[in-house]
Formats: sequence, structure tokens, C-alpha cells
Amino acid sequence: ALGAWAHRARARPVLLVVAAAAVLRGGSDVVHAEPHEEPMRRRMELFVKEAQAQIVRALEQADGAGRFRRDQWTRPEGGEGISCVLQDGRVFEKAGVMVSVVHGKLPPAAVREMSSRGGPARELQAIEGEHLPFFAAGISLIVHAHNPHVPTVHMNYRYFEVEAAGRRVAWFGGGADLTPSYLVDEDAEHFHRTLKAACDAHDHAFYPTYKKACDEYFVIKHRGEARGVGGIFFDDLASPTVERTFSFIRDCCSAFVPAYLPIVQRRKDTPYTEAQKQWQQLRRGRYVEFNLVYDRGTKFGLATPGARIESILVSLPLTARWEYDQQPAAGSAEDRLLQVLRRPREWA
Amino acid sequence: ALGAWAHRARARPVLLVVAAAAVLRGGSDVVHAEPHEEPMRRRMELFVKEAQAQIVRALEQADGAGRFRRDQWTRPEGGEGISCVLQDGRVFEKAGVMVSVVHGKLPPAAVREMSSRGGPARELQAIEGEHLPFFAAGISLIVHAHNPHVPTVHMNYRYFEVEAAGRRVAWFGGGADLTPSYLVDEDAEHFHRTLKAACDAHDHAFYPTYKKACDEYFVIKHRGEARGVGGIFFDDLASPTVERTFSFIRDCCSAFVPAYLPIVQRRKDTPYTEAQKQWQQLRRGRYVEFNLVYDRGTKFGLATPGARIESILVSLPLTARWEYDQQPAAGSAEDRLLQVLRRPREWA
Repeated sequence: ALGAWAHRARARPVLLVVAAAAVLRGGSDVVHAEPHEEPMRRRMELFVKEAQAQIVRALEQADGAGRFRRDQWTRPEGGEGISCVLQDGRVFEKAGVMVSVVHGKLPPAAVREMSSRGGPARELQAIEGEHLPFFAAGISLIVHAHNPHVPTVHMNYRYFEVEAAGRRVAWFGGGADLTPSYLVDEDAEHFHRTLKAACDAHDHAFYPTYKKACDEYFVIKHRGEARGVGGIFFDDLASPTVERTFSFIRDCCSAFVPAYLPIVQRRKDTPYTEAQKQWQQLRRGRYVEFNLVYDRGTKFGLATPGARIESILVSLPLTARWEYDQQPAAGSAEDRLLQVLRRPREWA
Repeated sequence: ALGAWAHRARARPVLLVVAAAAVLRGGSDVVHAEPHEEPMRRRMELFVKEAQAQIVRALEQADGAGRFRRDQWTRPEGGEGISCVLQDGRVFEKAGVMVSVVHGKLPPAAVREMSSRGGPARELQAIEGEHLPFFAAGISLIVHAHNPHVPTVHMNYRYFEVEAAGRRVAWFGGGADLTPSYLVDEDAEHFHRTLKAACDAHDHAFYPTYKKACDEYFVIKHRGEARGVGGIFFDDLASPTVERTFSFIRDCCSAFVPAYLPIVQRRKDTPYTEAQKQWQQLRRGRYVEFNLVYDRGTKFGLATPGARIESILVSLPLTARWEYDQQPAAGSAEDRLLQVLRRPREWA
């Protein structure tokens, strides 16, 4: 499945082995302590592809029956990707683990959007109306399970470079968040604590800042409710250095399996009723609302010429439901979830 | 259900009776031949409420079992509405017939969007950055049936007034379109011919112009396919006069029942397989994509403070499905639909 990439990689085996060793070790000190010969775009590409392979293996093992289908695609405008999708498994209804490594020219509107956010891209504000060369590499993941007691999870880590006036502006973005249909405090706490530990190893200010950013981002504004119980979310991050940020996002990404799979193990065999399944379907409808109406990544993807739509919309659940004016009974488990979605809580 | 409106209406019974008689007669010559004492906003309100009641009766009769639930709501910022929703009937899975009559202040961004379209609202371009008083009255309708051989239908007719610098700018918009999961030429032809007849009675240029506008508007751009087989669509219409346009949209609205219900009668008992039901569910997913990503009315509604979300999103189907990279077999009935959605045809 990694054919095209392996082919290109063959030219520089030594550097790749060094970078791969650092990735597989899970440590990052060596990598960020010294200047690296391999450019960051190559190291990020290697990292996300290896992370994809590891996560796919872990999810297949957790499912016990379903297998991921692997699609390698190329983008006519520049770049490629690998989409791994498992559909209708034993545990998982739909799981997608996608990698994309793309480059090309950013239209002025996209440059404006980025520079207006005030991160590293703010220096692009000086260059109005130009198409700028960009590079982006990222991994994104979404898992919807059959059992309504197993929460949906989403994760995305990405690296972005824009070149302007002879300079290169680079940053990372990403995060992970949990979307239960039925709230189990223990699960939300476990998920948040695992992410907090990954953050705390880098900077104690990270978790509280990115937890809050997550609560603020994943909001279905027209409903006045959060998509789920959050996690972490950040963008435009290149501080203190790009190198240290790479180390940070690798640790966050490595925290995915220990943050999520224990919850799957605990809940996958919990019995459920037809009414609970229907509630899950309604929550899936809300998930679709967020992704199609508000999600920046989805909107950027749908508006990008030549983007692979199936890889973007794989985030949508296999099935969803919209009932007119459905209101859970006060005090019910369904109502309890809504109360928390309307007022995000601290979990770690 | 019409309580609040009837209460206000009690003050001018005579004029209302005149207008109601014209509506019920279905003719419009008297109404548009002479200046009318009742303002257009009141006449439109009366018309859409009466049309709603008639259509609800016709759909209940066609369903044979389901009954519409009627919700009357008020908008804190000004105005009211009546949402009639039938869910899980014998023939219809979800049907919504909604009326809203609202007023308030338009934020500058909304004024800019309207004036940029180049219709009657273009004269608002001179007034930048101001909040302008507006009034809007409309009827909108969506019907999703259980049977995959019964197409989904959508209809919307609306009247809009904006006041600026002592002048009132007014226009109508609307249309109707058909979205089959399985294409039956006879049905698409019947639907289009019925709308064409309503258009032709007013201006022979209307149908070809609005048919084309419909094909251009209801496009799922990221898929490169139309939402359905179209119908008619127009906006910013006040020509040759507001009065004549009112007569035109009344005739279009009256064409809904004869355009759609015969198709329901013909297809509601057609046997179908589980695979056909799943294809319908995938097409419903596409419907959700259009409505949440592109539909102007939905976007305007979701972004309007105080809007009744349940009345806006009632347009979404009860159930929908997204399969990764699903492709129908070449030459299948499913594939035939896709071919037509990619290259709109003439039907009347």
C-alpha cells in the first residue's frame, strides 16, 4: 500500500532509518535536540504513515473481525494519500484512518483565512492576493462503533508550510476529541487524563489551553451544544520551535491508542436497547451537522479543487437520523448528556 | 393552530374575506388587476397559511394513516410560524410543511449578500453597514417517503421586503424540485410539465429560465452531481410588478399537489428490495450534504439569531447513510440516476 512512497524513499535509506527509529521508539529527545538533515516535511510524512499503520493494526485487533481496506490515491494538483477504511466490522461500524501529503498553490482566499488567525501565518498578511506554494501532511482518524455505549472518537494532526517572499512559514495543528451518545464519567476522565499526560510532558500550560480551545471549537452553534465531551485542539502551533512542536504532536498522536481503546474494551459488549440505538443515531445526526456546517477541515477539503471527497467525508457516520423536535425526558441518561454538552465540564 | 394570527386578523374581516376568496378560487386576475387595500405582506401571510392548510390535508389523505403535528411558535426577535410535521406515516417517512412570517432588522452582512445578487435588492448597495428593517413570509415544504420509488420533493415560496432610506424594496423567490432515488422518466416529465404549465400561464420565458436556474442551484459541487432532477427555481423576482409576481407564485404553489401526488399514488406500492432501500439511504445522505453545505435558506436560517432550528432542519430526512466510496455497477438503475444527475436533461 505504501508503494509510491517507498519508491521515492529508496534514494535516502539512511536518514529514513534514523527518523523511523525515533518514531518507533516513541521518544523525541534526540530528534528535537539536534538540527536534522531530513526536512520536516519528509519527517512528518514518515511519521504520519507509520502512525497510520500502527493505529490500523490496533483497531483491527480491537475489532476482532473487520479489516481495513487501503486506498492509495494521488492528487492531480500535487501529492498523494492513503485512506484506510473499515466498514461494518464486529465492533466498529465505520472507522477511517487517513493520511494525506499534498502540495500546490494556495489561492489568496485561503492565505487570507490563515493569516487572519494570528498564528505563524500572520506574516503572510503582507502578501495580499498572491497564490503561495504550500505543503501539508497530516493524519486524521474517525471511529464510529455499533454499540451506543462506545463513544465516537476523532483525531487529527497536521503540518503546514507556506512559502512567501523567500521565507518558509510552518506550523502544526491538531487534536483529539470524544463524542459519547451515553456519558460515562469514567471514560471521559480516562480520555482526558491520557491526553493531559501527553501534554504535561511538554508544557503544563498546554492541556488547560487546548482543552478550552477544544470546547470552544467543537460547538454546534445553532443547537447551543458541544459535539461531545472534548479533548484537546490547537492550530498555528510552532512554539517554542517547530522541532519541539513536532515532538509534542508525535506524543499526542501516540496517546491515541491508550486514550481510546481501553474505553472500547470496557463498553463494546454492554447490552443496549433499540431506543438507545435510536438515540445514538440522533447523536450521529448532530455529528453530521457539526462536520458539514462548521468543521474547518471539512469545509477546506470540500472547497479544495482535486480533493478526494471520499477521504474527507469518511468522517460521516454510516447511518444517522433526524427526528423532528425530539426531546429526551428530564433526568434521563439522554438528558444528562445534553446538560453536559451545554455546559462543558473539567475531566482531568 | 392559527390562534395568534386570527386574533390580529379580527380587526379587518372584510378585506381578509376578499383576499381569501381570491386565494380559494385559485384565480388571481382580480387581485392583480386592481390596487389592493391590504398590504402585500398581509396578503402573502394569508396565502401561505391557507396553502399550508390545503397541502397538509392533501398529504394526510395521500398517506392514509399519519397525521401532521402542528406547532405554532413565536420568534422572540419578531414574528411567528406554524410548523406541520408528519413523521413515520404509512406512505411518508417525514413530511414538513412550514410557514413563517417574521420581521426584524437585517444585519449588514445579510443586506450585502442580498444586494450583491443584483435583483431588486441591488439598490440597497448604496446603504452600507446599516441594520435594515425586513419582513419575510414564506411557505416551505419537504416530503420524504418510505418507498425508494417515491421521490423526495421540496417546495418553497417566499416574499421579502426590506426598508431603506424611506423606500421599500420587495421581491419573491421560490421554486420546487424533485429528488428521486430511482429515476422514472414519466414521473420527472409529469412534475416538470405541471410546473411548466403554471409558468406558461404567466410568461413563456419563465419555465426555461427557472428550470435552468434550478439545475444550476441544486448542485452538490463537491460531488459534481445535481441533488435531483430539478424543477423551477427563482429569486429576486418582482417583474413586471410585485402584484403580477404574487399571482405567479400563487399559481406555482397551487401546482404542487397536482405535480407531486399523482407520482406518489403511482409508486407508493411498488415492491422494493433491501438493496434499493439502502440506495435510497445513500441518496438521502447526499440530500443532507446539499442542505447543510450549500442551501442558502438553510445557511441563512442557521445563522439567524432566534431562528427555530427544528423548523429549518425538518428538511433533513429521518434516516440517512454514508458508505465509503460506494459506486453503483455500470448500467444499473442506480448508475442511470447518477448519469442524469451529472448531466441534467430536459423534461418538458
